[in-house]
This record gives sequence, C-alpha cells and structure tokens, in this order.
Amino acid sequence: MMRTRPLKVALLGCGVVGSEVTRIITTQADDLAARIGAPIELAGIAVRRPNRVREGVPADLLTTDAMALVKRGDLDVVVEVIGGIEPVRTLITTAFEHGASVVSANKALLAADGASLHAKAVEHGVDLYYEAAVAGAIPLIRPLRESLAGDKVNRVLGIVNGTTNFILDKMDSTGAGYSEALDEATALGYAEADPTADVEGFDAAAKAAILAGIAFHTRVTIDDVHREGITEVTAADIASARKMGCLVKMLAICERSADGRSVTARVHPAMIPLSHPLASVREAYNAVFVEAEAAGRLMFYGPGAGGAPTASAVLGDLVAACRNKLAATTGAGESAYTQLPVSPMGDVVTRYHISLDVADKPGVLAQVATVFAEHDVSIDTVRQQGKDGEASLVVVTHRAPDAALSATVSSLRKLDTVRGVASIMRVEGE
Amino acid sequence: MMRTRPLKVALLGCGVVGSEVTRIITTQADDLAARIGAPIELAGIAVRRPNRVREGVPADLLTTDAMALVKRGDLDVVVEVIGGIEPVRTLITTAFEHGASVVSANKALLAADGASLHAKAVEHGVDLYYEAAVAGAIPLIRPLRESLAGDKVNRVLGIVNGTTNFILDKMDSTGAGYSEALDEATALGYAEADPTADVEGFDAAAKAAILAGIAFHTRVTIDDVHREGITEVTAADIASARKMGCLVKMLAICERSADGRSVTARVHPAMIPLSHPLASVREAYNAVFVEAEAAGRLMFYGPGAGGAPTASAVLGDLVAACRNKLAATTGAGESAYTQLPVSPMGDVVTRYHISLDVADKPGVLAQVATVFAEHDVSIDTVRQQGKDGEASLVVVTHRAPDAALSATVSSLRKLDTVRGVASIMRVEGE
Repeated sequence: MMRTRPLKVALLGCGVVGSEVTRIITTQADDLAARIGAPIELAGIAVRRPNRVREGVPADLLTTDAMALVKRGDLDVVVEVIGGIEPVRTLITTAFEHGASVVSANKALLAADGASLHAKAVEHGVDLYYEAAVAGAIPLIRPLRESLAGDKVNRVLGIVNGTTNFILDKMDSTGAGYSEALDEATALGYAEADPTADVEGFDAAAKAAILAGIAFHTRVTIDDVHREGITEVTAADIASARKMGCLVKMLAICERSADGRSVTARVHPAMIPLSHPLASVREAYNAVFVEAEAAGRLMFYGPGAGGAPTASAVLGDLVAACRNKLAATTGAGESAYTQLPVSPMGDVVTRYHISLDVADKPGVLAQVATVFAEHDVSIDTVRQQGKDGEASLVVVTHRAPDAALSATVSSLRKLDTVRGVASIMRVEGE
Repeated sequence: MMRTRPLKVALLGCGVVGSEVTRIITTQADDLAARIGAPIELAGIAVRRPNRVREGVPADLLTTDAMALVKRGDLDVVVEVIGGIEPVRTLITTAFEHGASVVSANKALLAADGASLHAKAVEHGVDLYYEAAVAGAIPLIRPLRESLAGDKVNRVLGIVNGTTNFILDKMDSTGAGYSEALDEATALGYAEADPTADVEGFDAAAKAAILAGIAFHTRVTIDDVHREGITEVTAADIASARKMGCLVKMLAICERSADGRSVTARVHPAMIPLSHPLASVREAYNAVFVEAEAAGRLMFYGPGAGGAPTASAVLGDLVAACRNKLAATTGAGESAYTQLPVSPMGDVVTRYHISLDVADKPGVLAQVATVFAEHDVSIDTVRQQGKDGEASLVVVTHRAPDAALSATVSSLRKLDTVRGVASIMRVEGE
C-alpha cells in the first residue's frame, strides 16, 4: 500500500508549537509514514526571523516568503501555527486555491471567519482541520463533529483557558487575591506579560464560538459570545463559593435554548458545585463537559496549551489530512445546516449569587426581597451577616433570565439601604 | 449535495441498544440526513423473536433470517448489536462480502478476532467501526485512532466496566462487603443475574485487548490479557487503601514496556491515589486515562453502558460509515504495523500493597523484610498492628516486576511466623 511519492507538507510559523511539530515530523518519520501510508516530506517552513537558532529545525527549509511557499502548487498540506487574522487568512485561502489542505491551530481566525474558510476549502476540494484551536491536546473537535454526529448536543460547559484556571485555582487553594495569583501565574509562565487575552476572556470566547458552532451544527462567531473576564473576582467571592459547596471557575458555556430554536454562547467566571466533574480540574488543565441527549454527560480532560500538547493535536490532524490526500477524498467538514440564531445574553436562564453591602437595620431584607419579586426572580437562599451598622446580604436565586437579573440589580442599586453590589456571579453545573 | 438514493441500513439485533438505535434513526431522520448528505432507509431488522412488542420499531421490517438480510446485496451499512462470537462473525463477514460496511458494538468478537475482521473489511473495501464496543458513549476509539495518530501513547489506564466500579464505589462509600454491594448492584440493575462476565473481569479484559491494539498499533487479543476479578476484594482492603490516601478501582491497564519493544495488558483491582483523576469516577461511570508523549495526560469520561449511551456511539459510527459510502471511500482502519509482542504478567513492573497475618512476636518484621530483599523487591513502607498474640503487617513496595513479587509471596507463605497472606493488591496511577 505504501506509495512512493511523499506527501509534501509546509509549515507556517516555527515558534513553540511549530518547532515541536517539526521535531515530531522528523523524529517520528517512520511511525507517521506507517500510519499515513506514505512518508511526509517537509517542503518548507515560513518564519519571520530565519537567523534565530531553532534546534532540530533544518535551516535549509526556512523561508521568509510565506506567500511564495503556499503558492508552490505541489503542497499536499499546509500547517499554520502563526496565529492572528492577517496575513494568515490570505495565506490559508491561497493554500486552498493551490490545492493544499490546511491544518490550523488558529482559534482567533476560526472564531472570526470560520464559515468563509470552510466554504473556500469545500470549493477547492481540500480539508480544513483545527483540533489544536480548542483545548490544546484534548481531542474535542473530532469527537464533537464525528463521534457525536448521530446525537443531539444540548450543552457544552468547558474550562478552556489554562491561565485563568490556574489563577482561580491558586486563589481557591491559597486564599490569595486576584493580583497576587496573577503574579504567580506570570512568574511560572502560565500568564503572558500582557494577560488581557486570557484574563478578559477573549481567548475563551473564541473557543466558545468554535465549540458552539460545531456542537449545534450552526455558525457562531466571537462577536456572538457574551464575555466577562476574571479580573473582578475577589477572595471574598471564592470564600463565598466555598460556603455554598462551590468553586469559582472561568467557564465557556454553549447552550441550546429550551425550545431548541436558538443557542447561546458565553464566557464568564461562575460558581460550580464541588461535586461537578469540572471542579476537580486544577492548575492549568482544561476540560470540557458535554451533555448530549443519548450519550448523557461526557467529559474530556487534558493539557490545554503548551508546545508538545498543541503539536499532538496538530499532528493528529496532519495524519488525517494526509490520509485523505492519499485517498483523494476529504473528511467531515463544516456542518451548519441548522442555522440556529444566537440569542443575546439577556435570554440566558441560570442561577445567580449576589452579594450586597447593606445598612444593618430592620426591614432591609424585606425591601431587597420585594425588588427580586417585582422582577420575577425567585430567591433560593439568603445569608445575612452584620457588624458595626453595616451588613452583607448574600442572595442565591433560582433559575431566571439574565435580563431579569440585570433589571433586579439596577433596582437594588437605587435602594437607599443598599450601599453597593459587591459581586454578582452565576451558578452553573447543577 | 443531497443525493436522492437513500443509504440502506440493516440492523442485526433489536434489544435495549437496537431499539434505541431504531428510535434515533426514525425520530432524528432529518438531522441524520443533513449530517450524512443523504437519508437513511432502514432496510430490515433481524431479531430472534419477531412477535415481541417493540415500541417505535416498524413491525414490517422485522425478520428472523439474519443471513438472508446481510446477503441482500443492496445494503450500505449493517449495524450489529447482537453480541457474542457466532453466528455474528459469519454474519459480519457475509455483510462485508456483499459490500456493506459494518458498525458493531461487539467487544467479545473484536477482542477475539479483530484482525481477521479488519482484513476482511479491507479486502472488500468497506468500513468496520466499533466505538460502542469500549466504554459505551465515550468517544475513545476514534480519538485514539485518529486524534492521537501523530502521537505516541505509552499507557492507557481505564475504568471500563460500570458494574465493578459501582460495586467498589459502594464498598468505599458505605463500608459494605463485596456480597452486599453486589446485591445492591443487582437490585438496581447495574449487575446481571449472572455477574460473572463483569466481576471476574472478562468484559474489561475484552475492552483492554481492543484498547491496547489501537493505542500501540499492534494486535492484542483477550487471551493476551492478564485478568483478575473483584470477588476477593474485602472491606479491609478498601479501608487499608483509604489509610494510604487511595481508593480501590477495577482497572484495565495497557502499557508499552520501558524499552518500547513490547506491551502488556491486564485487568485487576488496584489502589489508586485519591488525587488521581480516575478516583473521582463514581457509581457506574467509565473513564479512560491516556498518557501520550506529546499530548501528556488525557482523560475521557462518561456513561459506559446503557441503551441510549451505546446507541450514541453506534450512531456516530453509522454517520461516518454512511458518509464514507457516499464519498466512495473508507475511514482509517486497523493500524497494526508495530507488531509489538505482548509480554506476560510477570514482566509488568508496578507497586504492591501486601497485607500479612503474622505472629505477634519480635523478629517477624526482620524475617519478612529479609524475604523481600532476597527477591530484590524494595519496601517503601511497613505498617504493623498487633493484638492478642496476632498481628497484621501491611507492606507497600517500590516498583518491582510482578514475577519477583509472586516469588516473594511464595516464600512468605513458607515462613512459620506468617499465618496467611490476607491480600495482595497493586498500586497504580502514581
């Protein structure tokens, strides 16, 4: 079965992930050839700085002209590990136009413009794979797209950003505040010098968009995803969560609405019960919990980032793309036939944990409870703590629409007896 | 893209899983057609008792002549959910010969004779898929075969039998003995009237054989798998595990040897640390932990049995097989190129927890320690408890070959001061 002609593969980008991909292609060449049915030939590696030392990367393959590389016309697969929107979008579409399948780890591009890329791939009869774009090494896109292709997914609940999970886990295990935990994450290399993309939820929102589109067979872009970061999570929130038997986790949540006619996608910190499988996900690990009608509750767990784990996902896609090239076929592509619209955050129905600073005098609870009732938000439990004329009131609600909760909070702020709303956090996974 | 001709699918068996498969094919017809690119037409359902009432199953499709059904010659895919070796093997090979791909949930057959079935499928240019054969709804075979196709798996450690996990979990949470926990499992429908296949490890051994073959790109049959059941696990073992910060779990363990030249596969009860992700798998849930060189530590978790979860896995395979039929191609099949041999249990290297009943007099520990040293089995910790002239000695070893441990235990039994070996249990997952 072994075909003599090798499969020509080009690499765009050779940073942490690209170097690891190159290393595996080189050192595991025999295994990859046996699994594909033909050897891989590295045809070129596009980099910005060709003179940088890259151990194990053949220097003669380096080029700064990525466009010329993807235009060669003899490539079977292009692996893109540069990241960002442009020039990558143009490079990928040019690769398609020249007959190459593409394996990408680019969550930002897929979340912004996946639909048009998929259409281009179909137009040119090639594959577009991107397992590495969500949750690093964890097989997730292929299981959702293929293993669950005969099932109906109703909810995806995931810890898809290792940096924020590390920070929240540190806050939980040490009692540290946000800044202190962020400093530790930075020192250990879990957070970048500018942590905005992680801590403000942009990274998780891109992944949520990709997961929602695949899970519900529709199209969701990052602009459709409601996004809140973790910068305002306090040690008090974490302690309050513990009192409820919960942990605070940064979650990406994609849900089908109760009537099945729309979907929602959001990322925000939330409390989840300690008994939930996601609660045991510590440090920088990722995990994604999937609820499907027939399958029930599934969870996928593993390292969500890093050179080698991301390379593992890229290589899996590369083997698939190469096999398809050999068989002159393509794999399962985009499935967006449901065309389900994405509802706004106000339509999301969930539970809330609200912490209020209130005057410590009689009648405050009655006033607060009246405001909740006026907005049809039903209260599950209330905890009152008072000292020195000041008090805090922690209210946990039953399930209510996000819009109703927002309106409730606006009204609460107008009460003379409410001195401030210390925190609002959703309660998920019950 | 929608082709007019429907894909003809026949079902062999219509019990708990088959009824659920039929229900989904019927009620989710539009979704399945959109995902496949053509509608599914149920061409026939072979059953033993056609007069049994099966809600939602079209009576005119039922036949008792399974062989005639698979010989029709116009079938695209045959779904086999009968189980057992014969007549199923003959039915499946006949289906291949008549051009049909096969989706099977049959772990016993795949573990006994997967290689020849795969060869037959290749010979006739059709697919053989069996995601449902291992760990029910959990996507596992496709992730191992495809997502990790560019990685090197070194170890698979799984809870793949829900019945035994339920029993051990009950023993742990209630302090019950084995018989009492088994009775509860039977009453709740988690154990069959004859629980032998589950509690003696035959079911888990079949799954271990399948997983080992796929993970290491070689061939492993159920006869290669070392098998010990849970019938001798006592409440004392569970309590002793807890003292070490461990739980007792029934594990399927597939490992590549340190030199990479052979593999081992085994199922037996073992102690694992409470901090291990598998420790949080309660009740009848399944989970499989995979260690790969680039990916690191992955875990897949979900319901391991039941009609609907198993049907979810069958339907995922059915969609894949139908897509391939439409594209006139086949998916990734067997990969057994490494031809790694399976080493015997004696070559397995792991840690041991040994509980001895000994005479409560001076010098016993020295005698026992000498026996361990003579067999080159290094002791990690010893715990001594004595009362009324009798004592127990709990020894936990460092890593040692299984053969050395067996020889040690034989020698210990010959000591006058050792009244009995109360239990031997391996310690895994560290």
